[in-house]
Amino acid sequence: MTMAKVYVTLKKGVLDPQGKAIQHSLESLGYREVNDVRLGKYMEIKLNDMPIKDAEKRVKEMCERLLANTVIEDYRFEIVE
Amino acid sequence: MTMAKVYVTLKKGVLDPQGKAIQHSLESLGYREVNDVRLGKYMEIKLNDMPIKDAEKRVKEMCERLLANTVIEDYRFEIVE
Repeated sequence: MTMAKVYVTLKKGVLDPQGKAIQHSLESLGYREVNDVRLGKYMEIKLNDMPIKDAEKRVKEMCERLLANTVIEDYRFEIVE
Repeated sequence: MTMAKVYVTLKKGVLDPQGKAIQHSLESLGYREVNDVRLGKYMEIKLNDMPIKDAEKRVKEMCERLLANTVIEDYRFEIVE
């Protein structure tokens, strides 16, 4: 089984109201050491067995076409076997 | 600057309709090699400088109290400097 772990994060400079809400909640729980929170997505995609090189190519395409909105989001991924 | 990278995922066996929606979208785009998709959250938390041991203790507490719903979600995190 080949698996891709995909991380999608907002680009620097893009407002993140959900992250801010988490930050404020942490602050009101007493975690004053928190300076910033950014919320992103994490996906685990199970794939049919295939060579890592092929999986990388396919997953990159999936990210570009569907998983990330590349106008406002960055993505990175790793393939594990 | 100390940073915590927190990953929150649904426990095994918990239904993941968002993951299924992504899976079906990938299939209809032609990615037949996709067997399963699970969607989780990824958070980057910037903290004041502190020893890694302390940060680990605090972030574990944040996860238990706010960041994850431990009835249906698992979490893991790493502290980076």
